[in-house]
Amino acid sequence: MNELQWVDLLKKRAGRGKGVITGIGDDCAVVALDKGKYLLKSDLFIEGIHFKRKNISFKVMGMRAVARVLSDFAACGGHPKYIGISAGIPAKVSMTQMQQVLNGVLTLGKKYSFSLVGGDTSCSEKVFFDIWGVGEVKKPILRSSAKTGDYIFVSGKLGTRKFNEPFLPRLKESGYLVNNFKINSMIDITDGFIIDLYRILKESNKGAVVFKDLLPLTTGEKDLYRGEDYELIFTIDKHEKNIETLKKKFYYLGRIKSKSSGFLIKKGNSFEKVKVKGYLHF
Amino acid sequence: MNELQWVDLLKKRAGRGKGVITGIGDDCAVVALDKGKYLLKSDLFIEGIHFKRKNISFKVMGMRAVARVLSDFAACGGHPKYIGISAGIPAKVSMTQMQQVLNGVLTLGKKYSFSLVGGDTSCSEKVFFDIWGVGEVKKPILRSSAKTGDYIFVSGKLGTRKFNEPFLPRLKESGYLVNNFKINSMIDITDGFIIDLYRILKESNKGAVVFKDLLPLTTGEKDLYRGEDYELIFTIDKHEKNIETLKKKFYYLGRIKSKSSGFLIKKGNSFEKVKVKGYLHF
Repeated sequence: MNELQWVDLLKKRAGRGKGVITGIGDDCAVVALDKGKYLLKSDLFIEGIHFKRKNISFKVMGMRAVARVLSDFAACGGHPKYIGISAGIPAKVSMTQMQQVLNGVLTLGKKYSFSLVGGDTSCSEKVFFDIWGVGEVKKPILRSSAKTGDYIFVSGKLGTRKFNEPFLPRLKESGYLVNNFKINSMIDITDGFIIDLYRILKESNKGAVVFKDLLPLTTGEKDLYRGEDYELIFTIDKHEKNIETLKKKFYYLGRIKSKSSGFLIKKGNSFEKVKVKGYLHF
Repeated sequence: MNELQWVDLLKKRAGRGKGVITGIGDDCAVVALDKGKYLLKSDLFIEGIHFKRKNISFKVMGMRAVARVLSDFAACGGHPKYIGISAGIPAKVSMTQMQQVLNGVLTLGKKYSFSLVGGDTSCSEKVFFDIWGVGEVKKPILRSSAKTGDYIFVSGKLGTRKFNEPFLPRLKESGYLVNNFKINSMIDITDGFIIDLYRILKESNKGAVVFKDLLPLTTGEKDLYRGEDYELIFTIDKHEKNIETLKKKFYYLGRIKSKSSGFLIKKGNSFEKVKVKGYLHF
């Protein structure tokens, strides 16, 4: 397929969502926004790096590419509003295949109420997507604001996700959390539980202890270092009264400590230093 | 260089611009916006497609990649506010080279007052950039609103731009135009004067006549079909009183006609149909 066909397809399928004044087809999209705070994010999804063509359908490509950005909006306590797609498309990729990509994107668009507002396209050797977007947020939850004494939770079991299947970003869970609890920090698991929790500790200048017996592992300790789980790690203020409610819905697994305490894992009555390692895209 | 080095470099160099609540380093950037209309845009800049590594310095890569998006904001009558960079970086590219890319981006950031708010990075086989951004606009100027009788102008000579040199997007000119004149439509020349003017005609459902003697060519008629000029084509309402002022500053070269008139070029006293062709990235 060629560039013009792709733009025509996008234009026809994306329509004009809420708040979109001018959608796909002009030099820029024009959108309306109210006064407030917004989230901006982009995320690359590249053949040979983030996925293998032979393992994944074009629809799932579209879904995973977008869901990765939606997961970042969830991690900041917001939700998506406008999404754009820059796509590198090898000449051999067919119109039908790109329609499947769009099907994947628009399935999530319907589910999570964002509008597809545009993007760019070029031929390339490998299939790749750069998904970017604008999210709405009332109170942004950052990595850098964990407090000593916070309860550490994760939104789901570790190690359950498949690389070649669609996943649902934890937008619903994030919305529930920010509306009902005092969350001090949050991040989504992209590179592995340990490294992503470490990012909270590093940015917040804190230490932590995690309880081995409470870790919601699926296959074993390697789940702690597995990327692309896309669950949320969040820390709840120690003065929060409804911790028991949260413990029923999510997995409680540790506490935030002062930086000098280090990053420890408690096994029975002994403590070990946590080894920080995870998947980096280099 | 690796992913973490690039994020650290971005974080250090980008700083925190006006309106940026949380910059580079969290799951998303958090920015403040007032109620209004905004422009959203992304633009790919890929080695082997849009540039050749051996012909262009890393600083110019950064400048051109960003200037292409700024040119789109100019074409819509707006100006940039927040810019993000998704970058594919082969392992062989050095820290120094990527610093030069950033130098290029930040040179334009200073000149045009936008804040660099984030992005994503991955290794890749070829160098590529997807630049995306949010622009501010009071009255968006579209391709689709040219009116019969409009005067057609171009902001500069055609065929003067070099592919491997930086260029200045016409943001100043666009600002002057939207603040002082009734501009009905505007587009920037990315694929060639003829094809880009044709896009205005197609979207506005209009025809046009261009005057051969008034075309500001540099090397000859091939300048009409040359991509990446990044001048603005704009059409001014026929009731506008200050056309003479505009004629002194920019190049007047034709009129918008009804669709049934077709797309014609006037040479002396004869009219010829315009051949629509231009550079497509497929």
